[in-house]
Amino acid sequence: MVTLDRIYHASTVLKGVARRTDLIEAAALENGCRLFLKTENLQLTGSFKLRGAYYKISRLSEEEKAAGILACSAGNHAQGVALAASRAGLKSVVCMPDGAPISKVEATKAFGAEVVLVKGGYDDAYAHACSLQRETGMTMIHPFNDEDVIAGQGTIGLEIMDQLPEAEVILVPVGGGGLISGVACAVKTLNPNVRVIGVQAAGAPSMRESLGAHEPVTLPKASTFADGIAVRRPGDLTYAMVREYVDEIVTVTEDEIAAAILALLEKQKMIAEGAGAVSLAAVLSGKVDVAGKNVVCLISGGNIDVNILSRVISRGLITTGRRVTLQIALEDKPGQLVEVSSIVAACGANVISVVHNVGNAGTAVTSCYLTLGLETRDAAQIAEIREKLTAAGFTLTE
Amino acid sequence: MVTLDRIYHASTVLKGVARRTDLIEAAALENGCRLFLKTENLQLTGSFKLRGAYYKISRLSEEEKAAGILACSAGNHAQGVALAASRAGLKSVVCMPDGAPISKVEATKAFGAEVVLVKGGYDDAYAHACSLQRETGMTMIHPFNDEDVIAGQGTIGLEIMDQLPEAEVILVPVGGGGLISGVACAVKTLNPNVRVIGVQAAGAPSMRESLGAHEPVTLPKASTFADGIAVRRPGDLTYAMVREYVDEIVTVTEDEIAAAILALLEKQKMIAEGAGAVSLAAVLSGKVDVAGKNVVCLISGGNIDVNILSRVISRGLITTGRRVTLQIALEDKPGQLVEVSSIVAACGANVISVVHNVGNAGTAVTSCYLTLGLETRDAAQIAEIREKLTAAGFTLTE
Repeated sequence: MVTLDRIYHASTVLKGVARRTDLIEAAALENGCRLFLKTENLQLTGSFKLRGAYYKISRLSEEEKAAGILACSAGNHAQGVALAASRAGLKSVVCMPDGAPISKVEATKAFGAEVVLVKGGYDDAYAHACSLQRETGMTMIHPFNDEDVIAGQGTIGLEIMDQLPEAEVILVPVGGGGLISGVACAVKTLNPNVRVIGVQAAGAPSMRESLGAHEPVTLPKASTFADGIAVRRPGDLTYAMVREYVDEIVTVTEDEIAAAILALLEKQKMIAEGAGAVSLAAVLSGKVDVAGKNVVCLISGGNIDVNILSRVISRGLITTGRRVTLQIALEDKPGQLVEVSSIVAACGANVISVVHNVGNAGTAVTSCYLTLGLETRDAAQIAEIREKLTAAGFTLTE
Repeated sequence: MVTLDRIYHASTVLKGVARRTDLIEAAALENGCRLFLKTENLQLTGSFKLRGAYYKISRLSEEEKAAGILACSAGNHAQGVALAASRAGLKSVVCMPDGAPISKVEATKAFGAEVVLVKGGYDDAYAHACSLQRETGMTMIHPFNDEDVIAGQGTIGLEIMDQLPEAEVILVPVGGGGLISGVACAVKTLNPNVRVIGVQAAGAPSMRESLGAHEPVTLPKASTFADGIAVRRPGDLTYAMVREYVDEIVTVTEDEIAAAILALLEKQKMIAEGAGAVSLAAVLSGKVDVAGKNVVCLISGGNIDVNILSRVISRGLITTGRRVTLQIALEDKPGQLVEVSSIVAACGANVISVVHNVGNAGTAVTSCYLTLGLETRDAAQIAEIREKLTAAGFTLTE
């Protein structure tokens, strides 16, 4: 059973191994409340996973340790186990699907694990890890459904209550449920009046649906770019702890997660991965009543693939009027490009791409199209450019 | 004169106003040394400027305070002064060039300042601020050439020496020189054996050239995307203090700065602006001898325009083989696009853009060009795609 004692014990074991991450007040993100961020994205390995993995390993018997450490993960658990095993002086093998971002594979290797790339998805990698375990007798570390792992993650709850004793609401990302089980157990035991709210992606609400069904259920699919919480079924341990300690589970959409990532980046100068940002997404999108309260969002990790981050930023720039693509119909005669460019330049926008094509079947033979990518300051500047181009006789499509 | 006493005094005044920012060990960035980051990018207002501005304002006479606070800035000083004045319960006016990123203008307003947008560049905004000062008698806060401002920034030096007494090398970004003057004075007074190294952008080496010339010199231009340190002339106070306390000034290129920003983002989950990342750029590019040492990079700020950040990421993705644009010559017959797409898909790359054009004068009438933007895993995957396309008879140009 996970108890406060055990979580305290984990916190002593983790001293000098895991960082006591900063709790940062986020004045620029406040949404009618006092908002604090528990920055596990700044934890070693870029997520909280190191805590549970290291505490679990510390509790193994000498035989279990000597057998070597095994894990299966496409992401944060891989890096957490790799560093935890290295710190404990043990050898580790991590099975990862071969489509995992190269950066995560490299990071796992750099933390000291031997990586086995398995063709296929997570399920294939997991099957391979299980057969490896049977063959070799290595000790497999489960990512969430394990009491010691849960106790390790729970140390974050102790830190929050020490850093902000007046906390009233704590929002925690939920995938398999290991993180929130430990945090909620610690927090509720110390102060039952603190509300602990779980947040899942709307495309992968396995814990929320399990609570509704009064038993763990398996989703047919888990569809979200927040890969760290794309879990189809909670553990039985974590399900039981969430039912006991957690007040509520809410969900957020992909767009709300992307907006939260961009807000953290612009306002707080921090990178969160999708899973790490759902807690903030819930506050910013008004999914929970936090008015006037002292609120802590647990930012669980920052290991976002840079290609995905780049897309999140692009989408954010477009929705906030700082990037736009204009389709302009031109007559096919000299000087048209000069005129368009001059108007755009006079408005102070910056051209970042140009494609100039002859027309298609639906347009006059003499016409052509200009597709112009622009960096702009805001929606007002875009409107000004559109107006001036229209006034000069150009036709903007789309 | 700036003394340790005065910096200590500033640190007591700043309690509860400025954050004592975390000193984070950056294991993933180590380059033959133990590397620590002093994270002033996570300071309130996103940069260290709040410290100097607030301490300066706290030292004003009642008459000076009652006259109101005035500043001129395109960036971090604007936000620092705005929040400092608000915290002191004073009204402030900040003159900004009208081309300043809308996000910085909005942030300055959000921190409580009245913003006056002045047509033109920084010099125009500064001229306007001076005339405003003459007309209204408001109290102007200089961004760096002021003893109280310098003492305020120096509190960072005290914090570093407290957080890492065994520090051996401290690298500090240098623009006007206010930050390094305060930090070096604090550090060298406490322990003269610590090396304090300034870092400037190669396109704006005003302090370095001034030291070489044995007097403050004015550069004809300051050309760098690290706008926070694009300063053409150091102050006379800061020049004298740097000469007294600083061991060396090194410079870094634009590409080195961009690489440091990307490394911080990927490895440390933090956003730095160009000026904030130069200290790390100097270490990563081997500009200073740090082998085996305890090294602190002062990350001075994180207020980077998201459009610029987006470009830094794009460039980084391209140079690390995670994004590529292929130009493929196609015969103008059905099925060609299907074949190319199939090959790319089989290699596991992800298509992000497609432009398909008929040929130009230099090519056969029946030929056309396909421009394909791809997300890739690494350079090896790109090479594999190129090989398979070539083997299938396609010609890749560029």
